[in-house]
Parts: sequence; structure tokens; C-alpha cells
Amino acid sequence: MKKLLDDPADAVTDSLTGFGLAHADLVRVHTEPVYVSRAGGPVAGKVGLVSGGGSGHEPLHAGFVGDGMLDAAVPGAVFTSPTPDQIVPALLGADAGAGVVAIVKNYTGDVLNFETAVELVEAEGSQVTTILVNDDVAVEDSLYTAGRRGVAGTVCVEKIAGAAAARGDGLGAVTEVAGRVVANVRTMGVALTASTVPHVGRPSFDLPDDEVEIGIGIHGEPGRRRVPFTGAAEITRSLLDPVADDLRLADGDDVLLFVNGMGGTPLSELYVVYGRARGLLEERGVTVSRSLVGNYVTSLEMQGASITVLRLDDELRTLWDAPVRTAALHW
Amino acid sequence: MKKLLDDPADAVTDSLTGFGLAHADLVRVHTEPVYVSRAGGPVAGKVGLVSGGGSGHEPLHAGFVGDGMLDAAVPGAVFTSPTPDQIVPALLGADAGAGVVAIVKNYTGDVLNFETAVELVEAEGSQVTTILVNDDVAVEDSLYTAGRRGVAGTVCVEKIAGAAAARGDGLGAVTEVAGRVVANVRTMGVALTASTVPHVGRPSFDLPDDEVEIGIGIHGEPGRRRVPFTGAAEITRSLLDPVADDLRLADGDDVLLFVNGMGGTPLSELYVVYGRARGLLEERGVTVSRSLVGNYVTSLEMQGASITVLRLDDELRTLWDAPVRTAALHW
Repeated sequence: MKKLLDDPADAVTDSLTGFGLAHADLVRVHTEPVYVSRAGGPVAGKVGLVSGGGSGHEPLHAGFVGDGMLDAAVPGAVFTSPTPDQIVPALLGADAGAGVVAIVKNYTGDVLNFETAVELVEAEGSQVTTILVNDDVAVEDSLYTAGRRGVAGTVCVEKIAGAAAARGDGLGAVTEVAGRVVANVRTMGVALTASTVPHVGRPSFDLPDDEVEIGIGIHGEPGRRRVPFTGAAEITRSLLDPVADDLRLADGDDVLLFVNGMGGTPLSELYVVYGRARGLLEERGVTVSRSLVGNYVTSLEMQGASITVLRLDDELRTLWDAPVRTAALHW
Repeated sequence: MKKLLDDPADAVTDSLTGFGLAHADLVRVHTEPVYVSRAGGPVAGKVGLVSGGGSGHEPLHAGFVGDGMLDAAVPGAVFTSPTPDQIVPALLGADAGAGVVAIVKNYTGDVLNFETAVELVEAEGSQVTTILVNDDVAVEDSLYTAGRRGVAGTVCVEKIAGAAAARGDGLGAVTEVAGRVVANVRTMGVALTASTVPHVGRPSFDLPDDEVEIGIGIHGEPGRRRVPFTGAAEITRSLLDPVADDLRLADGDDVLLFVNGMGGTPLSELYVVYGRARGLLEERGVTVSRSLVGNYVTSLEMQGASITVLRLDDELRTLWDAPVRTAALHW
């Protein structure tokens, strides 16, 4: 295993240390316990937004801490849920008196540990609502999850809820709009290669040189099926169709199309998939009015991509367009 | 070979088509011949900025077309120089009456084809200056190059010259400041794995599972030496020391530190290298006042990274901080 790391046991903290130094204008990295908060601290009267989950999906979530998005992020070990003792100070620190929304990807460990942490901070008088993200249409129930998994659609939830909080919406309104994103966002992914967890030292699964795994999870969990590799057009269709069908996209719908890289796939290939997906949506009479293409919810150095579609309405579009200033999203 | 492409012969145009659709607010993609220009066209009275080179290094250069950076980019085939017939319309289209600066990475084919194109547009009455970027300290002369290669430092040249042009500097002043960046920027890279050119279909070189190539070029050209893989700390030192020595960095210098991914390395590892490099610079008494970490000048899906250091002065810092709105850099 060759990785730009030293002791695999320090992979997460070494990376966070560099991240904190590179983005000192945006974030503070805390180490005991490990979590990341906004450099400026909570904004008085603003609803706080906190997310977290296993590491290995960078820039998710710490890359989205800043103005107009998250107030704190809680990274666990690689592909491992953060613990309640990490989540508690992140939640408390994000509470500026208006309550906190916890955005949790639907993995059993994340759900349980956030639940425990939320109970603890509620006991201290904080008001917390929890939004469960479960955008992955590939499988119902899987390794680590009861129900659908939460994957790249999380970026849409964090961006839009972050914008709602930044404009001054209250806890109920931010929770409502976050829930509306969850209800309207779907994702499906493909792996071309497996990734290697640093402290394991060997690829998480075997995938032959001429096959891809359709419906892969962001930890390399099995997807729907392995199929022979046949090129971008067919792979794009096998991801986009289930997403569009699950959303019941109809002629006249307006969407955000997000093509996400799994970490090891060149940007140039993601744009090929984007072009193909856009063609398929247009065939359905769907307008793509907003776009995002890049590596935002990754699986270490896995080669592959996912396609996320978010059905937009005027408010979601306005909140998506609102200014954001984080390490990974900035406009 | 598994890549998210269809016909390898269409890899560049398929990708550019998707890129143009995703960023229609920023760019126009032209196909006969192939080049990318700003969506709004040239800004009257502003010095134009044009760059180009082989594809496979995305987001370089098309990802830097927009406000405050390039007016046009000319992508060749993968790892192949663009031809004069592509470069000519890009230069002419970028000329809004104040002249054009061509930013060229030092590869023999790029240099010759830009020279030919510049002569042609000068014959039509345009004024063009050329800035040659040669920041790679790894080797003098190599495959494809006489003299040092141009690599990730190109991003610094394009950003800072773009800001100078955007604030209204004339042709002489933009050329001067671009030259000042070239004089003060140095880079060195490492490869952990090789990449595969789509129409070739096999890796560009062989690298054993336990070795890395120090001083690699962005086309996989040989570097200084192959060494056993020993972790991020030692690799970082073997890249940073030659860069710092060549720049004669001294106690009290203020720099931009840019850790660039080669395409297939996770962001989390780039931050580890960033943290190590920053420590080494601080040992030398050097202050890191600006930072950039991410995949900006890539080599397809190659795993690896490069370290770029730019010595800053007040003007370069101001121009770096100036607003930029492109697909790949935005603040």
C-alpha cells in the first residue's frame, strides 16, 4: 500500500491538522475530542448546523464548514462513525441560542451515536432536530444500514439548509427545508476500482479488470450488480434511470444535476458522465438549471462516480445560489 | 482499461461538451477548432489572457477560464500540444484592443505551436506577449522539454496575471507581473502510480508496488530517481527541499504553499503533505500566508502530488486575493 501518509493510525488527525492550517480563516480543528468548527464560532441567533460521519469521504464534511453551510463537522476514523463524545461538543459549540440541526447520513452507527449525543445535549438545554439523509436508491438495507444509505445528496442538504440558517430562518424552517431536500434528492453510484482503508492495507473488495459495480456505496458496500464494463454512456444510463424513476421526474421538472467523483476518477471523466446524464434528462423533458461536478463525497482513492438529482423549486434554487464560503464549496 | 469514457478518440471533446454544459454561465466551448472562451466574450479595453496545452491535466486550463483569470484556453489531445489553428482563434477572440498575454508551459511542442500562432495573429495586427512557465525544479531538459518543465506553478501565473488584467493593467504591466510570478515560483512532484492515456490503453510507465518516482513530470516523464516508499514525511521533504533551495528561501520570506494532487490521490492525503511541508517551511523561518490544496494540474488518474512554493510580495498577495470566478477556482 502506497499512500501519502505516515502512521496509518494518525491518518485522520494528520490530515485534519493540515486542513486546519490551510484554512485557518474558515475553520478550527479540535483534537480532544476530534471535531471541526467555524473559525468565527457560532453566529448569535443563527440556527446551528452540524454534520459528521466516518472519514475517507473528504471533502465531506469538514470541507463544508464555513459561512452559509455547516457550523461544525465531526469526522470519525476512516469509514467509522464518530463517537458521542466527539459529537456532543460539536453540537453544543454550534448552539447560539436558536437550536441546532444535525444532518446525519443513514448508517446505523452514525444514527445511534448522533441519537445518544443529541439526548445528552438536550439534557443540557439545547434544542436539536435531526435530519436523516437517505438518497441512495441502489439498495434497501445493506452492510451498515437499515433502509437506504445517505451519500452524495448530503451536500445538497448541507448547502441548502446552511443557506436557510444563514438568512435567519428559525429551527422549524431550517428543519423543514432540509427535509424537503431529502424528499427530493436521489443518488446512485458506480465503482470501477476498490479503495484501500489505510489501517487495513488491502483493497476493500475485488473487482475484475473488465467489470464495474453498479449501485456501490461510499464504503465499497456491494451494490445492485456487477456488469461488464461497456463505457460511460451505458453506465450513466444505469445510474440515471433508477434515480429519475425513483424521483418520478416528469416533463417540465427543473433539477440540479450533481456528478460526484469517488476520489480517484479524473475530472475530465466526470464531465463526460455529466454530458451523458444531461442528455438523458433532456430526453425526459427535464430542465437542468443548476449543476455541480467534482469530487465532493469520495471513497478514498476509489475510481467511480455517482449521479445525484435534486428536484428544485424556487426556494431551493434561491438557497442553492446563496453565497457560500467553505474550503470545498465557494461562491 | 476502465474509464468513464466511450470512444477514446472522443475523450477530449466529450469531456469539453459536458464542461461547457455544466458551466454555461462561465464558458463557451468551440469545437471547430477546439478551444474554450469566456461566456461573455472579451472585456473591452482589458488585456486578454490565453493559455493552453495537452489535455489530461484538468481542470487546467479550461477550468480557469472566467472572471479574473483566463479569457481562453486551448486544449490539445491528451498529453499533446494544441495546434496553431486552435490557438489562433483563441488569441484573436481574446484581443479586446489591449493586447494578449499567452501563458505557455515549457514543452517543446507547446512553445513551437504558440510561436507559430502568435506570428499569425501579430500579422493580423494583434499585440501578443508570451510568458513561458518553467517552474519544475526536478530536471533540466527531459522528454518533451528543453530546459525546465512548466507544471503546477502555472495556476499561480494564470491567477495573478488574470487579476492584474482584470484591474486594468496594460499589456506591459500584466506581462511584467506574470514574469515576476515565473521568477518566484518553483514546483516538484512525486508519482505513486502511473496513469493510462485513453487511446493508448496501458499505463505510461511501470512503477513497482513499493517504489515512488521523485521529480515526476505531469505526463509521467521520468523524474530524478526512484526510491522505496517510506511515507509522507520523507516524500514531502524530498520535494520541498529542492523547491526551497532553488528559490533560496530565507528566514522572513512570505510564501504561497500549493499542494497539488495528480488526479488519483485523495484530498485527505494532500492535506497530510500540506501539513508536513508547512512544518518544513516554518523550520526555515518562512511564513506561509496563502495556501491552495487540491487537484488543479493533474496527470489523468495518476496517484501522487506536487508541492509548489511562490515567494510573495505585497502586490502578488493582493492579486492572488482578488476575486476570481471560474469553474475550478472561485473566491
